[in-house]
Amino acid sequence: MNFNETLTNKVENIEKIIAKFLPEETGFQKTVLEAMNYSVLAGGKRLRPMLVQEVFELFGGTGDVAEPFMAAIEMIHTYSLVHDDLPAMDNDEYRRGRKTTHVVYGEAMGILAGDALLNYAFETALGAFEHADAQMYPRIARALQVLAKKAGIYGMIGGQVCDIESEGSAEPITGEQLMFIHEHKTAALIQASMMIGGILAGATDEEVTCLEQSAYDLGIAFQIQDDILDVTSTFEELGKPIGSDEKNNKQTYVSIYGLEQARTEVKRLSEEAISLLGSESNSFLTKLFESLIYRSK
Amino acid sequence: MNFNETLTNKVENIEKIIAKFLPEETGFQKTVLEAMNYSVLAGGKRLRPMLVQEVFELFGGTGDVAEPFMAAIEMIHTYSLVHDDLPAMDNDEYRRGRKTTHVVYGEAMGILAGDALLNYAFETALGAFEHADAQMYPRIARALQVLAKKAGIYGMIGGQVCDIESEGSAEPITGEQLMFIHEHKTAALIQASMMIGGILAGATDEEVTCLEQSAYDLGIAFQIQDDILDVTSTFEELGKPIGSDEKNNKQTYVSIYGLEQARTEVKRLSEEAISLLGSESNSFLTKLFESLIYRSK
Repeated sequence: MNFNETLTNKVENIEKIIAKFLPEETGFQKTVLEAMNYSVLAGGKRLRPMLVQEVFELFGGTGDVAEPFMAAIEMIHTYSLVHDDLPAMDNDEYRRGRKTTHVVYGEAMGILAGDALLNYAFETALGAFEHADAQMYPRIARALQVLAKKAGIYGMIGGQVCDIESEGSAEPITGEQLMFIHEHKTAALIQASMMIGGILAGATDEEVTCLEQSAYDLGIAFQIQDDILDVTSTFEELGKPIGSDEKNNKQTYVSIYGLEQARTEVKRLSEEAISLLGSESNSFLTKLFESLIYRSK
Repeated sequence: MNFNETLTNKVENIEKIIAKFLPEETGFQKTVLEAMNYSVLAGGKRLRPMLVQEVFELFGGTGDVAEPFMAAIEMIHTYSLVHDDLPAMDNDEYRRGRKTTHVVYGEAMGILAGDALLNYAFETALGAFEHADAQMYPRIARALQVLAKKAGIYGMIGGQVCDIESEGSAEPITGEQLMFIHEHKTAALIQASMMIGGILAGATDEEVTCLEQSAYDLGIAFQIQDDILDVTSTFEELGKPIGSDEKNNKQTYVSIYGLEQARTEVKRLSEEAISLLGSESNSFLTKLFESLIYRSK
């Protein structure tokens, strides 16, 4: 099997795992349960649960303790999209070719479905304590702490707040703010995914720190590549209008530091990200990193 | 000290505990941190953290393991008010005499501050694992599970969804739906508070079940008393317009079951709630229950 076939198989398997943890659509609160499932089942790369699983296996993890965390991190990623799409935020009516949650279920239910997904993510991940050996308790507790921190005000929400505020500001964004947004809005949940995979499999503190840095590099390289593609790609390759950042007067890594430095930085980050995975890294995970960073769309 | 003086002292002490867990207002995400603290520090009865603390002590709990949970449950209660007040929900501009969070910080920040409080509630409660003995791990894990369940789709959010939908419906609400809303929207977090206090102090499963029932009784009695006061009180006593439920064509326990049955039910629930606390119950907790149920405003 080549990389793309393996990737497709893995995504299918991950979607089965996620589906196991979704709520049954029944009861007086049925509408919110439908809205939650509609949002989670809208598709996507399933990158975050994939990273949990791959790193868990890389560090010799066995059993199904990582599964509730795989579902949980996808729920958190999904809730952030549902709330980002709301009229008071980005006001998006379509995502991945489907109507967004608040368009289908109404704005109140969009807010509540997002809240419900965030809460249910913790409820689901806490389920890992069920049937767990006493020796697994500290690992699960640590994984939950990482999940909460990287999703919250010192992680993803922090990045979103800074992004929303800088969009509404007359001042151009500084390089420092831009890196804060990328680190928190994008890299933090990728960090959580890889750290949780490692922690649950018994990685040492030092190894978890390497995973955190590797995930940071991956997330930032992914974002800078986005900015590069916006100026170097063609409409045909990208499948969406190019030059939109410049048109929207949006400061990016490329507009602040120039195309050459952007390319150098992507190369440096990607090499560091892969080398931090260690010599044990299997070829799939390495290829996954490369496919995410050196993509043409 | 009489009951009211004791109550005031306890509230002051609880507010000091909550303040310890609030975020410092610094960094690029400062605005959301300010909005979170503005919302939590808006005042209120602090009933939920008080119930955690009182039940924890009733069951012989010592040390500070309950403190992060006291702050967490108040954060969850607060986030639910912040989101309820949003324009797409109840569209309230004032709460407790102060402007609501989205009025002060804008709608996007109101959504994000609510998300941030919910996430930070779990982050804070998970902090209970720090410095905890290994033997405390299962209790903390169980308390976290109760917190997540009672706040989520099978708890508070479930009740809010049913409430929002029934308000927007042409069909009058049924008695079954009304009790579902009261049980989930109001009683669930009160149940979580009392169960968590018991679990952290080492209450048996049977005792925790009694606490769950006692809290249910308290929550429902409180709500029915609300409905009774709306038809029997005077404007002077209540400090707000009476008869508003009838005017808004709102079905209540009184309109469905009549005033006499409502009064009988409050009496039955309140007696059961207090007797379920057990003979060990201190006089403060008993008086707190009575003051919540048999109030005139």
